[in-house]
Amino acid sequence: MTNYKLILEYDGSRYHGWQKQGNVHNTIQEKLETVLARLEGRPVEVHGSGRTDAGVHAAGQVANVHLSSHDINAQQLMYYINQYLPEDIRVLSAERVPLRFHSRLQAVSKTYTYYIETEAKAPVFTRKYRYHLGQKLDIAVMQKAAGELIGTHDFRGFCGNRRMKKSTVRRLDSIEITQEGSLVKLEFTGNGFLQNMVRIMAGTLIEAGQHKRTPESAAAVLSCADRSMAGFTAPAEGLFLTHVSYHAAALK
Amino acid sequence: MTNYKLILEYDGSRYHGWQKQGNVHNTIQEKLETVLARLEGRPVEVHGSGRTDAGVHAAGQVANVHLSSHDINAQQLMYYINQYLPEDIRVLSAERVPLRFHSRLQAVSKTYTYYIETEAKAPVFTRKYRYHLGQKLDIAVMQKAAGELIGTHDFRGFCGNRRMKKSTVRRLDSIEITQEGSLVKLEFTGNGFLQNMVRIMAGTLIEAGQHKRTPESAAAVLSCADRSMAGFTAPAEGLFLTHVSYHAAALK
Repeated sequence: MTNYKLILEYDGSRYHGWQKQGNVHNTIQEKLETVLARLEGRPVEVHGSGRTDAGVHAAGQVANVHLSSHDINAQQLMYYINQYLPEDIRVLSAERVPLRFHSRLQAVSKTYTYYIETEAKAPVFTRKYRYHLGQKLDIAVMQKAAGELIGTHDFRGFCGNRRMKKSTVRRLDSIEITQEGSLVKLEFTGNGFLQNMVRIMAGTLIEAGQHKRTPESAAAVLSCADRSMAGFTAPAEGLFLTHVSYHAAALK
Repeated sequence: MTNYKLILEYDGSRYHGWQKQGNVHNTIQEKLETVLARLEGRPVEVHGSGRTDAGVHAAGQVANVHLSSHDINAQQLMYYINQYLPEDIRVLSAERVPLRFHSRLQAVSKTYTYYIETEAKAPVFTRKYRYHLGQKLDIAVMQKAAGELIGTHDFRGFCGNRRMKKSTVRRLDSIEITQEGSLVKLEFTGNGFLQNMVRIMAGTLIEAGQHKRTPESAAAVLSCADRSMAGFTAPAEGLFLTHVSYHAAALK
């Protein structure tokens, strides 16, 4: 068997997210597994670094898969998969990695990017990849609110799953907020994210940027661990999984 | 009456081009006229700088329209129109211009940009705005072929309308060909373009870049004025009307 690490981009608009689940079809994982099962002549399981929700995009999702097809190198594998994938999913790179490499279990940190369009009318060519707010935002206030969230905290108040039984403690390394013209970009990096966590943080920061809440109220969501104190869940269409990091040792 | 100059961008994917025609509905012009008729309470005619074909995009189409609504300034007009336009058409700017200004009759030059994706699998987020060739191109050969076309010539051999009765002489000022990563960009500037002319020139240059024809054969299309000697009509999805120029005096 050979273990391959794949880096993927996809337009999540018409998918029910990354992960296949019982009756929910049309997922990214399923599309990849169908193509690879064809190559291998048997069912194949693809492991993603994490789920992305319905409608969320990826510019750097990472997955790995164990294949027995020996007469193919990583580059050929990439061309093979791309040939059969639909036009909204693409393998950006493929490489052979140690058999023990696992894209989810060994992920060290992840970066998600959230794009907000503040112009009254959204630019037409990127309209499916931005949350169209259509209002100006106070970036300084958003940066102050973001500062309250950095560090290792219990993020239960930012978790979309109210019945989450496992630990909701995560380490958030940075939130970089930048504006270029009418486009506001929020870049979140951390060791892991709970269900809807990035979208709820984005919604909370947007409300701070609209002066609908104080920057300090973000810290209160952490201390009270109460979802109802956080902001709205910002729409999926503005969110991209942009990068997943691994220790170099995991890849050799 | 006040005359307004509008600069527009649109995603042409789901439209039958710029111009309304008898039974063909769903055109960009029609969408604009519907919104403006609502403002004026009477039918309104919008003049475009030129037609764009079905599926062709614009990043800088120019139009003008005479309105009697006096209690609105150019900025307010832009917001009004944008509010009612579908999400794939947007007014980028609006300004008051002299009553005699006409977007088509006074256009001095136009620039069209054609985008070709040479990577085997197209990047997913721009896939609707590129011609996906999926093969490498010899840029130097394309530039040589492009050089044969610059100047004032009879472009009948590059005209998609075989029954064209008016003059087919045009002045082509420049064709700039550049490559950035796997994306090849062809930028055509001239005083006017015949039906399908940019797409037939693009198809001819692509064939030269694939070594399917010599660079000199582009000149032969001009001298023979024979459409069958030119290349294929490159698909609409890769084409953008990017800029229309006017003399400053026409706007004052």
